[in-house]
Amino acid sequence: MRLIENWFSERYSDNLQLSFRVKDQLLSIKTDYQRIDLFDTYDFGKLLSIDGTVQLTEKDEYVYHEMITMIPYYFNKKPKNALIIGGGDGGAAKRLLKLNFENIVNAEIDQNVVEVSKKYFPEIASSFNDKRVKLIIGDGIKYVKNSSEKFDRIIIDSTDPVGPAEGLFSEEFYRDIKNHLTDDGIVVTQSGSPYYQEGALSLAYKGLSEVFSNVKSYLAFIPTYPSGLWSFTMASKSEFTVRDENVINGIYFNKDVLTGSFYLPEFVKKIIY
Amino acid sequence: MRLIENWFSERYSDNLQLSFRVKDQLLSIKTDYQRIDLFDTYDFGKLLSIDGTVQLTEKDEYVYHEMITMIPYYFNKKPKNALIIGGGDGGAAKRLLKLNFENIVNAEIDQNVVEVSKKYFPEIASSFNDKRVKLIIGDGIKYVKNSSEKFDRIIIDSTDPVGPAEGLFSEEFYRDIKNHLTDDGIVVTQSGSPYYQEGALSLAYKGLSEVFSNVKSYLAFIPTYPSGLWSFTMASKSEFTVRDENVINGIYFNKDVLTGSFYLPEFVKKIIY
Repeated sequence: MRLIENWFSERYSDNLQLSFRVKDQLLSIKTDYQRIDLFDTYDFGKLLSIDGTVQLTEKDEYVYHEMITMIPYYFNKKPKNALIIGGGDGGAAKRLLKLNFENIVNAEIDQNVVEVSKKYFPEIASSFNDKRVKLIIGDGIKYVKNSSEKFDRIIIDSTDPVGPAEGLFSEEFYRDIKNHLTDDGIVVTQSGSPYYQEGALSLAYKGLSEVFSNVKSYLAFIPTYPSGLWSFTMASKSEFTVRDENVINGIYFNKDVLTGSFYLPEFVKKIIY
Repeated sequence: MRLIENWFSERYSDNLQLSFRVKDQLLSIKTDYQRIDLFDTYDFGKLLSIDGTVQLTEKDEYVYHEMITMIPYYFNKKPKNALIIGGGDGGAAKRLLKLNFENIVNAEIDQNVVEVSKKYFPEIASSFNDKRVKLIIGDGIKYVKNSSEKFDRIIIDSTDPVGPAEGLFSEEFYRDIKNHLTDDGIVVTQSGSPYYQEGALSLAYKGLSEVFSNVKSYLAFIPTYPSGLWSFTMASKSEFTVRDENVINGIYFNKDVLTGSFYLPEFVKKIIY
């Protein structure tokens, strides 16, 4: 009887961690940008970690990917094309395809994320085989500086604002983003755990507010992310108006969530106002 | 240099755990009803655990206690008196006192919980020194069978539906509760993590629906509880109507939360409907 147990732990601080019992570690690589690890866990299926933080698990990825795509989808004019910055796992693109986007540019800086996802999350990465998706391996910051195409939605599906993703939370980047948005287009970014990473939410909200006149943060519950509470922040040049349209349910998302996720607890309001 | 680290872990399943680094374990007792442990943690201050599950930490107890008292407070006629079943730490009673309740009966089955709270959470347990609070050490199930007093609010602040609290999730108990409610009175119960304890929410919602014509579940984010998402379920003989009244902010609770916490993600709706 083998009594040794294998656990992968994400440290939320020096003094707090969430641990997943794993069947095996399937991969560990150091790329030019970050460290990528892949675990086969008992409770959440395959788990992708970047620099020690959980990015994606088979079992609960639906919350993050539904919420970063479906919430902004239902506002303003029906969107047809999108730019995804980051999102190398293909999960955001996959949801946009389901929402009948016709043209998606996905700029991921680290080719290895795409390769790992194709190998270990083939269903999620299947979006890269769709001819409506154009994958660009390159720096999203440079891409928005050096191109001119306009998009109805821009999705910043990045890691946290340390390391390669730091520039994706800057005012300068948001100004370049603005140049790529159609008139009533919407940009949305993941903005971290309001409980453990006040800084990410504050950076995103304040940075976007310098550039856009309409900014809104919303929340979702993600069990494998720090504290279980996650924030997203979206911005537009024009006012946000929910379209009068039947809403498709996800596993997490529904019409109630489209309304309710914008009601913020007092401690979250204190971070952004 | 001492390299050994001390951690307390709550197992959410055989394969998942949240761990708190602790300065010390201050107490461990086995009572007639349960095991009580008390830790001094680095990130969350003092932490009370019952049968290995986190009940209360100094740093985030406000969410649970605000949400189990303040949400039902703002519905229907302004309440004046309340029965708390469980709640031996004094936290629910403390919030009710802040809301100017005039008369509170608190029935806690385990005297040790009260003693531990008085010693380690004196600020929270201070409610037991207030003459508006009548503490009864005894079984809440028997109390509602053998008494006749009516209350505007009944708060079931229990542990999870295993062990001593199992009967607090039964239809029979809810029928006895109904006899103790004023005409537009409201009962509220904690109903577990919708993500890891579907059973608790389902039991509470379905049991209350057998007895009451008006039942509503609502959610809050609690970082030290399993998955970070927690549910509460409230019921009444009369329809729920929010009073037209200024809402007092808590650290978590506010007017937005009073509305937004009732908007449920699709996977939660699937549990209760």
